[in-house]
Amino acid sequence: VKHKILSENQSSKNMISGDRFKVVYKIKGDKELALSRANDICYEQTVEFPPDITPEGFINDNIVGRIESFEPVEKDTFHATISFANEVATSELTQLLNVIYGNISIKPGIYVESIDFNENLLKPFKGPRFGIHKFREYLAINNRPILCTALKPMGLTTKGLSELAYLFAKGGIDIIKDDHGIANQPFSKFEERVIECTKSINKANKETGFNCIYAPNITAPFSEIINRAKFAKEAGAGALLISPGLTGFDAMRTIAEDDSIGLPILSHPAFLGSYLINENGISHFALLGQLMRISGADATIYPNFGGRFSFSILECENIIKGAYTSMFHIKPCFPTPGGGMDYKNIHLMQKVYGTDVIYLIGGGLFKYSEDIVKNAQQFKEACV
Amino acid sequence: VKHKILSENQSSKNMISGDRFKVVYKIKGDKELALSRANDICYEQTVEFPPDITPEGFINDNIVGRIESFEPVEKDTFHATISFANEVATSELTQLLNVIYGNISIKPGIYVESIDFNENLLKPFKGPRFGIHKFREYLAINNRPILCTALKPMGLTTKGLSELAYLFAKGGIDIIKDDHGIANQPFSKFEERVIECTKSINKANKETGFNCIYAPNITAPFSEIINRAKFAKEAGAGALLISPGLTGFDAMRTIAEDDSIGLPILSHPAFLGSYLINENGISHFALLGQLMRISGADATIYPNFGGRFSFSILECENIIKGAYTSMFHIKPCFPTPGGGMDYKNIHLMQKVYGTDVIYLIGGGLFKYSEDIVKNAQQFKEACV
Repeated sequence: VKHKILSENQSSKNMISGDRFKVVYKIKGDKELALSRANDICYEQTVEFPPDITPEGFINDNIVGRIESFEPVEKDTFHATISFANEVATSELTQLLNVIYGNISIKPGIYVESIDFNENLLKPFKGPRFGIHKFREYLAINNRPILCTALKPMGLTTKGLSELAYLFAKGGIDIIKDDHGIANQPFSKFEERVIECTKSINKANKETGFNCIYAPNITAPFSEIINRAKFAKEAGAGALLISPGLTGFDAMRTIAEDDSIGLPILSHPAFLGSYLINENGISHFALLGQLMRISGADATIYPNFGGRFSFSILECENIIKGAYTSMFHIKPCFPTPGGGMDYKNIHLMQKVYGTDVIYLIGGGLFKYSEDIVKNAQQFKEACV
Repeated sequence: VKHKILSENQSSKNMISGDRFKVVYKIKGDKELALSRANDICYEQTVEFPPDITPEGFINDNIVGRIESFEPVEKDTFHATISFANEVATSELTQLLNVIYGNISIKPGIYVESIDFNENLLKPFKGPRFGIHKFREYLAINNRPILCTALKPMGLTTKGLSELAYLFAKGGIDIIKDDHGIANQPFSKFEERVIECTKSINKANKETGFNCIYAPNITAPFSEIINRAKFAKEAGAGALLISPGLTGFDAMRTIAEDDSIGLPILSHPAFLGSYLINENGISHFALLGQLMRISGADATIYPNFGGRFSFSILECENIIKGAYTSMFHIKPCFPTPGGGMDYKNIHLMQKVYGTDVIYLIGGGLFKYSEDIVKNAQQFKEACV
């Protein structure tokens, strides 16, 4: 069946720059199945139309994805590199994510390994406002790992959390963030907490001469998140924590790119685990590296190897690569492993992470003694 | 190690209503492992603190999650029902999602089966503005399945898409939505498309006496989505299509609850597949039923069984249950299976879905003949 209406109403070739970006998919199946899945991606992510009635001409030639390469990686596993016209993804992050993994996230056997952007596709995105180099300048910390901790447990009063903030800052922690689950509970309301914790940290900074900053959690409903970011900025917070899996990636990008806010962004992977720990998902490299950067994260938080989560050293190394890999003007961001910090594995961590890392230490700062300042100092000595 | 600062700065019991909501998790592992995972959920989703130093008193008694029941379902698989204080989740959807599946989405062996809300937890959420009953009134359709189709393929001009819209409307389709991947590409810009497709459908309605509505895709960046919703409303669109996996769930909720918009919402599952087709994820019942409703969907679109996706009849039946299950004042929504519609399986579909369903027919309307109006009429006759 051919439909005139489809063939006669196609856009013209001058709508297309010719620039195409590529996604590398890992596809399960024997060669025949994997190839048919690759072909399916080309249609499902663009025209969502049966191949046999997809109109010849502009649409078939330019809109449908294109298999650029197809190679075996191991038994019943293939890498298919598929290219899409930049114009299919537009300059909107929501639609870019959709082209990468929208409908096909619902089909089995398809995993996103990496994205090969091009300069024009990335042009509309600012990426991390600070990135590694400027974030270091901002913190006045050269050439050593940066230390971060989290205010918790939930259920403490603002007084309790701000006293903890004071002790952490006294002990030499560089960035003190809210625990990602501390939002606007009645135990410690957002605005009061931001004011009090900022005060405590400023007080400690005056006494120590350090430059510790506070990163409140602004993960919040759609109509609240910009207000929280601006409130935090006004109150003197030094950075912001956002879980884009909860807010949407574009909410984080919007805040990162907003010049009236202008603070470094720490991204948290809450609610994103299903992409990361399953066969059908998105790689650590692409999701926690590339996509966090395009969405404006200056630091990408994730569970460290050896901790209470399940990431392997190899997966963490892939996050590092995704945090550093060349993406034109999009700056690299800090790998920020959390959990699993211990004196025992510090040498291994130093070997894996080197210098350009933010170590996120949570419960560890409570574990060794009753003196939180001393615990922080000892961690710092061990790590830097 | 005990820390005075933790025990002395706990919130007071009057911060807690005593209302707790429950999440049923399916946990993999032998009894010992599964129980330790259940225990882990209680801490990870709330205090994120090592159990041995979590302070006794208010925090331990009220903030930490509580295992309400723990039962085997099959070999090495258990159901753990865990309750959380309403105040831990607050009235913010972002934090509610975080408590349900934030950090533990990153830990293996944990799957969300269902959520047992309570009346007070749901009070701040309006849910679907229309729901099944009012959506029927709005469409003036009693007691028969509703027919929906999608404008595609991407790459057609606005003229082409609006001509298709006219033919679909003439053929008696009730709801004509944009394909979920058609956003604001240069081939058919959003505003122009909304104006032209609305016109075409109104013209057809005048000729047929039907009441067909247009549902443009407003999935868009954070700063654009409200504008698109309002533009669509102004232009006379009858409903809105949103992919909350791309925009964040709370963006959809915000639009659904906005009285100045006031249109029915169709949710699309793009980018949510990793939760749905993996071992570590969220059930069809909870994600496509319960959570879509709390986020304001009047119709929950998903891939039908027997189509080009992978859902089973059982999974589709669980979506139906999630779309209908009692959630206090939160209205039920329409199951909206897409794809896989064919004369061959219509009897099975009628058996599974009954009357309260929106059938989403895409490529099928092009398949049988060159006469799109006739194809639509034939489908309608077969389905209703």
